[in-house]
Amino acid sequence: MAQEIPTEQWAQVVEETGKPVVYKKIPVQKPGPDEVLVNVKYSGVCHTDLHAVNGDWPLATKLPLVGGHEGAGVVVARGSLVEDVEIGDYAGIKWINGTCLNCTFCQQSDEPLCAKALLSGYTVDGSFQQYAIAKAAHIARIPKDCDLEAISPILCAGITVYKGLKESGVRPGQTVAIVGAGGGLGSMACQYAKAMGLDIIAIDAGDEKKAMTAKLGAQHFVDFSTSKNVVSDVKAATSDGLGPHAVILVAVNEKPFQQAAEYVRPRGTVVAIGLPAGAYLRAPVFESVIKMITIKGSYVGNRSDSAEAIEFFRRGLIKAPFKTVGLSELQSVYDLMQKGAIAGRYVVDTSR
Amino acid sequence: MAQEIPTEQWAQVVEETGKPVVYKKIPVQKPGPDEVLVNVKYSGVCHTDLHAVNGDWPLATKLPLVGGHEGAGVVVARGSLVEDVEIGDYAGIKWINGTCLNCTFCQQSDEPLCAKALLSGYTVDGSFQQYAIAKAAHIARIPKDCDLEAISPILCAGITVYKGLKESGVRPGQTVAIVGAGGGLGSMACQYAKAMGLDIIAIDAGDEKKAMTAKLGAQHFVDFSTSKNVVSDVKAATSDGLGPHAVILVAVNEKPFQQAAEYVRPRGTVVAIGLPAGAYLRAPVFESVIKMITIKGSYVGNRSDSAEAIEFFRRGLIKAPFKTVGLSELQSVYDLMQKGAIAGRYVVDTSR
Amino acid sequence: MAQEIPTEQWAQVVEETGKPVVYKKIPVQKPGPDEVLVNVKYSGVCHTDLHAVNGDWPLATKLPLVGGHEGAGVVVARGSLVEDVEIGDYAGIKWINGTCLNCTFCQQSDEPLCAKALLSGYTVDGSFQQYAIAKAAHIARIPKDCDLEAISPILCAGITVYKGLKESGVRPGQTVAIVGAGGGLGSMACQYAKAMGLDIIAIDAGDEKKAMTAKLGAQHFVDFSTSKNVVSDVKAATSDGLGPHAVILVAVNEKPFQQAAEYVRPRGTVVAIGLPAGAYLRAPVFESVIKMITIKGSYVGNRSDSAEAIEFFRRGLIKAPFKTVGLSELQSVYDLMQKGAIAGRYVVDTSR
Amino acid sequence: MAQEIPTEQWAQVVEETGKPVVYKKIPVQKPGPDEVLVNVKYSGVCHTDLHAVNGDWPLATKLPLVGGHEGAGVVVARGSLVEDVEIGDYAGIKWINGTCLNCTFCQQSDEPLCAKALLSGYTVDGSFQQYAIAKAAHIARIPKDCDLEAISPILCAGITVYKGLKESGVRPGQTVAIVGAGGGLGSMACQYAKAMGLDIIAIDAGDEKKAMTAKLGAQHFVDFSTSKNVVSDVKAATSDGLGPHAVILVAVNEKPFQQAAEYVRPRGTVVAIGLPAGAYLRAPVFESVIKMITIKGSYVGNRSDSAEAIEFFRRGLIKAPFKTVGLSELQSVYDLMQKGAIAGRYVVDTSR
Repeated sequence: MAQEIPTEQWAQVVEETGKPVVYKKIPVQKPGPDEVLVNVKYSGVCHTDLHAVNGDWPLATKLPLVGGHEGAGVVVARGSLVEDVEIGDYAGIKWINGTCLNCTFCQQSDEPLCAKALLSGYTVDGSFQQYAIAKAAHIARIPKDCDLEAISPILCAGITVYKGLKESGVRPGQTVAIVGAGGGLGSMACQYAKAMGLDIIAIDAGDEKKAMTAKLGAQHFVDFSTSKNVVSDVKAATSDGLGPHAVILVAVNEKPFQQAAEYVRPRGTVVAIGLPAGAYLRAPVFESVIKMITIKGSYVGNRSDSAEAIEFFRRGLIKAPFKTVGLSELQSVYDLMQKGAIAGRYVVDTSR
Repeated sequence: MAQEIPTEQWAQVVEETGKPVVYKKIPVQKPGPDEVLVNVKYSGVCHTDLHAVNGDWPLATKLPLVGGHEGAGVVVARGSLVEDVEIGDYAGIKWINGTCLNCTFCQQSDEPLCAKALLSGYTVDGSFQQYAIAKAAHIARIPKDCDLEAISPILCAGITVYKGLKESGVRPGQTVAIVGAGGGLGSMACQYAKAMGLDIIAIDAGDEKKAMTAKLGAQHFVDFSTSKNVVSDVKAATSDGLGPHAVILVAVNEKPFQQAAEYVRPRGTVVAIGLPAGAYLRAPVFESVIKMITIKGSYVGNRSDSAEAIEFFRRGLIKAPFKTVGLSELQSVYDLMQKGAIAGRYVVDTSR
Repeated sequence: MAQEIPTEQWAQVVEETGKPVVYKKIPVQKPGPDEVLVNVKYSGVCHTDLHAVNGDWPLATKLPLVGGHEGAGVVVARGSLVEDVEIGDYAGIKWINGTCLNCTFCQQSDEPLCAKALLSGYTVDGSFQQYAIAKAAHIARIPKDCDLEAISPILCAGITVYKGLKESGVRPGQTVAIVGAGGGLGSMACQYAKAMGLDIIAIDAGDEKKAMTAKLGAQHFVDFSTSKNVVSDVKAATSDGLGPHAVILVAVNEKPFQQAAEYVRPRGTVVAIGLPAGAYLRAPVFESVIKMITIKGSYVGNRSDSAEAIEFFRRGLIKAPFKTVGLSELQSVYDLMQKGAIAGRYVVDTSR
Repeated sequence: MAQEIPTEQWAQVVEETGKPVVYKKIPVQKPGPDEVLVNVKYSGVCHTDLHAVNGDWPLATKLPLVGGHEGAGVVVARGSLVEDVEIGDYAGIKWINGTCLNCTFCQQSDEPLCAKALLSGYTVDGSFQQYAIAKAAHIARIPKDCDLEAISPILCAGITVYKGLKESGVRPGQTVAIVGAGGGLGSMACQYAKAMGLDIIAIDAGDEKKAMTAKLGAQHFVDFSTSKNVVSDVKAATSDGLGPHAVILVAVNEKPFQQAAEYVRPRGTVVAIGLPAGAYLRAPVFESVIKMITIKGSYVGNRSDSAEAIEFFRRGLIKAPFKTVGLSELQSVYDLMQKGAIAGRYVVDTSR
């Protein structure tokens, strides 16, 4: 009993970089032979979407562009070669919209490194529209017992922090420090870290963030705005005083990064997962070598990571705070984001 | 048939930091209950020894100090608790002279990270004397079919580069770039890399280095002094143009390090193993994250790494070039080293 | 303020294999230079202790023998070389009483594989006495905020199942099947698995076990006594029907083992951790190869594993059911064990 | 300058299981949208092909069937969706002809575990014909500097033994025992092991095999037909007497398997890679647990493994002995194979 597909739909369009997005009607596309068409119900709004609007990354977007890469919805059409997705299935539009599946990186399950990767809401149209296209091999498979509104922020934020935690190599029972734990990515990282059996040191500023991260599962809090010595305070929060086994930096700046290299335990790992424009990692050679620390960049998850991150959500272990507005109000979300005035995640409802 | 142990011996002593070493007679020590006394026959001279003499590292030495931590010799006495070392055994005095064997790091075989580690020729007297002390648990066990003169540089240089190659995670058949491949550590790294089944890109300057690294097993050479674009030349030396899977930097400076972060393959690893005073690692966040690269500091090997590095030597796979002079001539080796005028490794013979 | 150490003490002694243990007074030993003397307060009773009494393992015990290897107590004396243990510290007597710390296996943190390992309550006297000896390097370091009675079963059962779970390579969010989940080892395995973020399929018989394992954290239960097809029921308990990523067999018999090889997910791992006398692992080559499964034996934990297992307990995540009786009543515990009539763990109190 | 494709071609056809193959003309197929057509020049003959002819595996073949899965040739046509393969490219037809690229296993690069895998020469027609079809994503990419005749046995035998060696986890400098080292798979395993920097113990029977394996890179030989104690002889062949770190069994039978479990080093790995019909792995629980050994089944390689195995060949490191006959003579090769009278590998030339 297939849903009827309209020829026109509402979308938020970036017509010119650096200008407000335009809410307007545009045509609905048809899926190619290896693609599906997803009726997007909800879409999370990610900081990357703002980079696409602002055009401040060293990577050009398509123009005009429909942004968005945290779209959760229902499959309404599929191409002739698609066999393992059914009409009516729940599906997610992720940052990685499609890849070649053939190159060295795709062959080793590192699809995010594929040189031909299509990026939703960046190099191809994304989820800030009612009907979006994606390669069937790359849509997130969302179980039917998941709520589409709540799962949408998992599709980028959740997958990304989960991947960062995996890449850190930290094991259940060990300690992870999350820098920026009270923000959108950070709060989700707290929940994944808890579900993974980790001891968590949340690093952020203010009592509100302290209370919130405690509620999300963090056993320890270091307030970088009031601490006299962040490095020694973070070390002191570990039971043996040797520092956390891993550090996840969700918003990498030079000073927090250097501090992380100092307080991470010898043999520990510092994972950078944000993509700030123009920032640098910097660490002293001598100390890095004699402590044998590892510094890693972690991008988004591959298809397996995505399925795993979704499974944690399905089992009820991830309840990230979010706020929903209509798709028509997207620009107001960007405005708040631009001012750094967002706590938690925004989700847009494409029906209004 | 134990050897007679004299009460006095020849040694090279650092009496004051920054001054020439003094060749003189000093008493022979007696081993404690968990120690052995080694009659050092030969000792390699490492750049670290010069740091100890110059006192330019952020870590104080004992004073007066007998330097040296690549000592190869024969066990002549052992403490009452030592059971698994026999008088007459061949043994090596390594940088790690002893550790607590009990702390978190020792428990996980990361003895070099032990906070109580004793460092030969730095915090305890080392191998630039005829009779040196070490903890029995930490001496290198040298098989009797090894030549003590040739093996001495293995005891620090060999172990260190082998450890760096292991830490890089590079697998047989993959490509490693060795920056500074024509130097003392670099040439040894080429040989270990060859023995480990790796494809090698040697990076250094000049035709002499090119010829030498080719002889040591490097299939490719990039001359940083004449290359118009080191990054693209290194990438071009890999069969698929994607860059080496790992980069070993034996002498870390900022520019070669940044280049390494650029030419290393996505998902690749850059390993820093030298200990230059005051240098920094620096890499752009955006590129590091989307390429998912790993940057690692690698210090010296643990006891297992040491045994493995020695086994490669024993099997005849490592033939590093070296030059032998008398222990009495040590200062002249430091003088050459200070001028950067050393190719290959110097070894001192303690009998003269 | 050191405790006064008596010259005599109560102990349970195996005087002859196959005979009841004898409760009697024996002398208190003095620690050697690298040993400590522990005033044992409580000791768990393990199935291995019964093997020692019965002498039915292919490994001879010392005779006469004081059994026991889950002893929790207080350090009351230490040898002259012991530096990092203080009088008054809490300490645990584990199965591994001491090892050489020097061999290939000790060097790679596999102390349980040391050919010279001393085994508490088997090749050296153990914890069924008031004052027991152990090598300082090998005692478990028990934090002061731990309850000595409750922690005693962790010292073998806890460490062993935690090690098995680690060896399985299963990651948070993945599924583990625990065969014999309702027994002493099994119930502890459920708790560790829960603390490690795993999805648990408990396999055992009866509604009582079902209720108990559910309380300990198991999300699924397969009753092998009533299931018409254990293999398909276990597979059906995983969300994608492909079977668990790992299987932990706490009591290995041929049939459950073969079933495990069948229901484990392709690429999954079956870990055998019990030590039944005379049993065999058996699996068809064809299916094992095309499913690429891994079968592993896991013995007890090393010192790091032990510290980690204790840290989970300290954080309040492991609450294994146990029952305490006086040391004088040990034989009655063996009698129950012999009949297979024990649920959960017995602990003996050495003060009575 | 595309090659003209005929409508008919020569092929060897299994018309009925258990009967001789029939050399006859059959139609040339056209590739589907995601497939390529390969003009097979040479094809290795594998023991699996004989299983397909005999129908003695617990897995049914297609009928009538063109066997063969080591086909090396030239791409002559491609489907409309194929972008990254060019007409004229060298390509290999492997055992894995195609997979879904979407399931859990494909997503984690374990394509050989895909439940929808198409198997060349088994569930789809293979390389014993002049023109064969394969999914573009799965053909082996063969560099132009490779000889198509010599590379053909790499496409199954080479990839399979290389995968087995990788799965064993053995590292350069460690020791691997290869059971059946003088056979077709075994001799290739010796060469890969040598290229991977391993110390090799070849286990086989007779002086001819001893000489051959020595030439292929094996440093040690144990003759199971004359050895009084295979277990102790294999252990004695390792420098420390503790046994090899890994054992590769290319033809798994119960006795050699049990011996392997005995002589493998504690913590070592036994890898079974052959697929004999009806054989069982069997090992004692007690010894397996206290030695902490790992037993693994290894099937064929994935796409990455295949590319790596080919790269070793391209670099000139693998020179497996083979003998070439015309495709028309295939039945005579099967006859020899049936008698166990083959040393090395047979290759068929499809032009005659």
